[in-house]
Amino acid sequence: MLDHPYVEITHATSKSYVGKAFNQIYENFSEISELECVEEDIASISKETDVIFIALPHGIASAKVTESILQNTKIIDIGADFRLKDINTYEQWYKTEHYGKELLNKAVYGLCEWNRENIKNAKLIANPGCYATCSILTLAPLLKDLPVKKDSIVIDAKSGVTGAGRTLNISSHYNECNESVKAYKLTSHRHTPEIEQCLREICGEEIILTFTPHLIPMNRGILVTAYAQLNENLSYTDIKNVYEKYYKNEQFIRLTKENIYPETRWVKGSNYCDIGFALDERTNRIILTGAIDNLVKGASGQAVQNMNILFDLPEKTGLGNIPVFPI
Amino acid sequence: MLDHPYVEITHATSKSYVGKAFNQIYENFSEISELECVEEDIASISKETDVIFIALPHGIASAKVTESILQNTKIIDIGADFRLKDINTYEQWYKTEHYGKELLNKAVYGLCEWNRENIKNAKLIANPGCYATCSILTLAPLLKDLPVKKDSIVIDAKSGVTGAGRTLNISSHYNECNESVKAYKLTSHRHTPEIEQCLREICGEEIILTFTPHLIPMNRGILVTAYAQLNENLSYTDIKNVYEKYYKNEQFIRLTKENIYPETRWVKGSNYCDIGFALDERTNRIILTGAIDNLVKGASGQAVQNMNILFDLPEKTGLGNIPVFPI
Amino acid sequence: MLDHPYVEITHATSKSYVGKAFNQIYENFSEISELECVEEDIASISKETDVIFIALPHGIASAKVTESILQNTKIIDIGADFRLKDINTYEQWYKTEHYGKELLNKAVYGLCEWNRENIKNAKLIANPGCYATCSILTLAPLLKDLPVKKDSIVIDAKSGVTGAGRTLNISSHYNECNESVKAYKLTSHRHTPEIEQCLREICGEEIILTFTPHLIPMNRGILVTAYAQLNENLSYTDIKNVYEKYYKNEQFIRLTKENIYPETRWVKGSNYCDIGFALDERTNRIILTGAIDNLVKGASGQAVQNMNILFDLPEKTGLGNIPVFPI
Amino acid sequence: MLDHPYVEITHATSKSYVGKAFNQIYENFSEISELECVEEDIASISKETDVIFIALPHGIASAKVTESILQNTKIIDIGADFRLKDINTYEQWYKTEHYGKELLNKAVYGLCEWNRENIKNAKLIANPGCYATCSILTLAPLLKDLPVKKDSIVIDAKSGVTGAGRTLNISSHYNECNESVKAYKLTSHRHTPEIEQCLREICGEEIILTFTPHLIPMNRGILVTAYAQLNENLSYTDIKNVYEKYYKNEQFIRLTKENIYPETRWVKGSNYCDIGFALDERTNRIILTGAIDNLVKGASGQAVQNMNILFDLPEKTGLGNIPVFPI
Repeated sequence: MLDHPYVEITHATSKSYVGKAFNQIYENFSEISELECVEEDIASISKETDVIFIALPHGIASAKVTESILQNTKIIDIGADFRLKDINTYEQWYKTEHYGKELLNKAVYGLCEWNRENIKNAKLIANPGCYATCSILTLAPLLKDLPVKKDSIVIDAKSGVTGAGRTLNISSHYNECNESVKAYKLTSHRHTPEIEQCLREICGEEIILTFTPHLIPMNRGILVTAYAQLNENLSYTDIKNVYEKYYKNEQFIRLTKENIYPETRWVKGSNYCDIGFALDERTNRIILTGAIDNLVKGASGQAVQNMNILFDLPEKTGLGNIPVFPI
Repeated sequence: MLDHPYVEITHATSKSYVGKAFNQIYENFSEISELECVEEDIASISKETDVIFIALPHGIASAKVTESILQNTKIIDIGADFRLKDINTYEQWYKTEHYGKELLNKAVYGLCEWNRENIKNAKLIANPGCYATCSILTLAPLLKDLPVKKDSIVIDAKSGVTGAGRTLNISSHYNECNESVKAYKLTSHRHTPEIEQCLREICGEEIILTFTPHLIPMNRGILVTAYAQLNENLSYTDIKNVYEKYYKNEQFIRLTKENIYPETRWVKGSNYCDIGFALDERTNRIILTGAIDNLVKGASGQAVQNMNILFDLPEKTGLGNIPVFPI
Repeated sequence: MLDHPYVEITHATSKSYVGKAFNQIYENFSEISELECVEEDIASISKETDVIFIALPHGIASAKVTESILQNTKIIDIGADFRLKDINTYEQWYKTEHYGKELLNKAVYGLCEWNRENIKNAKLIANPGCYATCSILTLAPLLKDLPVKKDSIVIDAKSGVTGAGRTLNISSHYNECNESVKAYKLTSHRHTPEIEQCLREICGEEIILTFTPHLIPMNRGILVTAYAQLNENLSYTDIKNVYEKYYKNEQFIRLTKENIYPETRWVKGSNYCDIGFALDERTNRIILTGAIDNLVKGASGQAVQNMNILFDLPEKTGLGNIPVFPI
Repeated sequence: MLDHPYVEITHATSKSYVGKAFNQIYENFSEISELECVEEDIASISKETDVIFIALPHGIASAKVTESILQNTKIIDIGADFRLKDINTYEQWYKTEHYGKELLNKAVYGLCEWNRENIKNAKLIANPGCYATCSILTLAPLLKDLPVKKDSIVIDAKSGVTGAGRTLNISSHYNECNESVKAYKLTSHRHTPEIEQCLREICGEEIILTFTPHLIPMNRGILVTAYAQLNENLSYTDIKNVYEKYYKNEQFIRLTKENIYPETRWVKGSNYCDIGFALDERTNRIILTGAIDNLVKGASGQAVQNMNILFDLPEKTGLGNIPVFPI
């Protein structure tokens, strides 16, 4: 945002760091930004800003965002509260009440590549979850246009530790996650219904799938490996054509060449999503892999992309970072 | 082996390090072993030893091991040449000729927990591959006793970089694999037919599955996440009972408690294989996870276990290492 | 300890985990130990045990250990409270009162290689700090026998993150310390006076030095790089001879060959301390490097070594672990 | 460079990758640059370009750069061949002949902050070494203006593995350097005379110092910890004032606040050098720490900065990257 030519950051709010300069917490910003953290007061801030980005634990944002605030400003919610359309699904997976049910139908799911037209006119954008972004972008063209057995989909996802946030927790203590790999939240990760909802909207059919996240000892990056059974014999080119149809003109999606597969290192620090696939002829299964930087395309980068769409700016504004390697 | 009370190491052969002390290459052995690397001469060594461990690139061992050598000594081959029974399958996946076809039917697949009786009387043992060990141990009870859709199996495996060996290669250069994750050898990893062959023998039915390995930025450890569709509704206890039936008395297999899943850190440095599972009721799919140390249970540890069985020693001799954490 | 032939563990006490099995916290011990954590009650436990190991924050142990407890049992304190002989030095560096001043002169500093005779008859052993162990072992022969400028010593130390313990703290959150290096506690680390006190006792002269610790993104290991100005011209052999005089017969100290320098990977998982050095002829300075596993020789391993000395057992009992690499 | 508004990249030469697209080697550049690697032919390229960046092993550049090439173009040599002014020092430390002796007096040492005026008119710039850049920037103000014992300087430096380059080598194999730390090239690292030469020019006195590099298990970053004995008692402010005098207006140097010390994570991906220091009153020693990204300020970033100075462009052009954290 500091590089974004059309943005002026007016407020940074915080619960833990009120009164502290942002660059005391993140010293990389020393001599770059003198912004100071202030108390959060969304109602008052809404009167002075064109857009507010919220990143709050679930159940909090739903209580804070109101119709009257949305009269004043636009909101891009990086949290989960406005992603699921069905209130029962929300309450079942998030185990908490939703305090802004009446806004659910106004919220637009901000998966830019698949929802651009709706985003343009939105007041409230639900920025997609990190795993959801990568999973949906990887699977959507397949499910939309190709003969896939809809109940055969398995998503095996791998994320760096930043995915768990900065909250102190024994499971993100250095020595507890370094040099190890594990699956977690088997059958119960909250991005599951989000992926299903969005894929259903895209392909027009019910999708119930298995999603298993894994914790990888690295800072950043998500790799999604998705498996699906094909109902017909398809060639590599058949599938490639469909992916190019949807993604060839997308500035932030890169399709890897045949026999080349995404690696998280190639997208780190950027808003790219790299996608590749292989056909397993012995089983007539397709294996797709997608890679994003969970903190960029999987969070703040996509949020800026949504802002650009909202304000009719070129979508790449402020998002031109070239992936940095090795870093 | 240095701690094994019944073993005397008489020769260490090497191609690259002849004349060098082992502890010059691996300084951790300084003041512990004064063994020196010598030229490999398997025929002559076979006359002076009770057992030889071989770890050679595929296509090499098959030419070196002969009937007459097996008259002199027993052989435990940590390489791949004697694992596959079907010569066509071997040549198709390994893209090389096999020079010891006549020994294939004598070789015993050394997956200790499932092949113990055959191992006892073997002259030539094919020590299983690292991914294969973890995959088969994780899936075997399920496939043997429970109603699984046989063509629904997907194995998504994750390995540390030691899995790629010590040969210089750009893909195991520190900066190329650190802080990144990728899938590799999609649809073509050579442990695939090995897993299929062994599972077929165990369950008596043809198994064709999808196997996808991933490279994880850590030294050691394999985590296998396996997915299968159930043909009936089963409870957690139904499945637990079957796993306990086969593994309760196994010294190197530990079943995790409900809602606890294996992590590679808990088995590092040991010969354990930890196994856990979850039922995904929404899809009637089972998700199993298994963890081993690829260099122990996935290679040398299982080789020692095979030796213990061969020589009628208690199976845990020399393998009592407690997993070390955090390390 | 689980492998120690003369030890029976009777109690494991904890503040946070009372009632939990040790193997629920550290699942590597699953099926290995069924020990359960109980409330700490050192007075009562002292009546049932031959030795108690304490590892408590400073200021706590000094209040708990009493003369009457020491009538019942021996104590090996892995914490810092009984290491410094001078109460003012303690209170100045630890910024807390000492509640067991009268025991200070009874406590024996448990640096086994340099204090073995005193340890034998001790009731209360102050197990050395991790940095202190490595620094003193590396510098002691030099300072004792060779002409060194006593005020020229600089110790630049590097430690893995386990050195910071398991307490939740932003500075040991995975993403805060991974892929970065920093110096910390400049001029104020509490192992400084401990190193000075012990070196002074060994060489008989006042030693005031500079000690700078650094945090390294790895689980285990300490590397000490120590610099000192020589008062005369010495040859490599002159120095080597002195180190061999003191360490040749030490089971846990290994001197590296000329031009070979210690690396933490070669001692990981073991009780070894590896030491090497180079002469910088241009500056007539000596550069010594020492490596230990901070959790073994730098903590629990040395504690067991102290116990072995206390109970007149072979010093290596239970400490025979060969360093494991790569792990 | 791809973001630099005044640069057009016309040639990328390579020995190993001729004919390959740059983005096949570094897939992060996929869809960003279509540049293809060509044979190196510096004479011919010199006729078509304003500046050539060279990064060649030592002994190679000195033979390739000629007077006539310098008539055509400017050269920024990222390698070591033109850094040392004294040919004997070069040949002694680099153990190779120098083939361009007559150009040595034309070459300008490209440490921008201390040599800006000379750089402006240079034809041939010797871009400083990574360790040298960080060491000199950290020590220069101290040595120039303050009463330091000139023979007391010790530099203990720590670098990530990218410092070793991408050449295949067992010591940068993932499993050989991950989870370990070591000192290397004790008393013999080639940046030593480079640091001494530049500091001597800055402070006008002979400087002979000890420099010890260490390998840290991380991709990027250099941290220098430098020690020096003060000849007088100085306050924190005395020293701070001198550092501010030289660096306050420097765009790429940031002085940390009191009690805050540089960490490599805060400069990663940027051209910054962060510098801090502590006074050790007990020993009257100063401890300075400096941090850079070895691949930016320690290599290509400083090279671009040199180019900007050469062509009279604002020094920050193309170098505005904000350090990224955590990455």
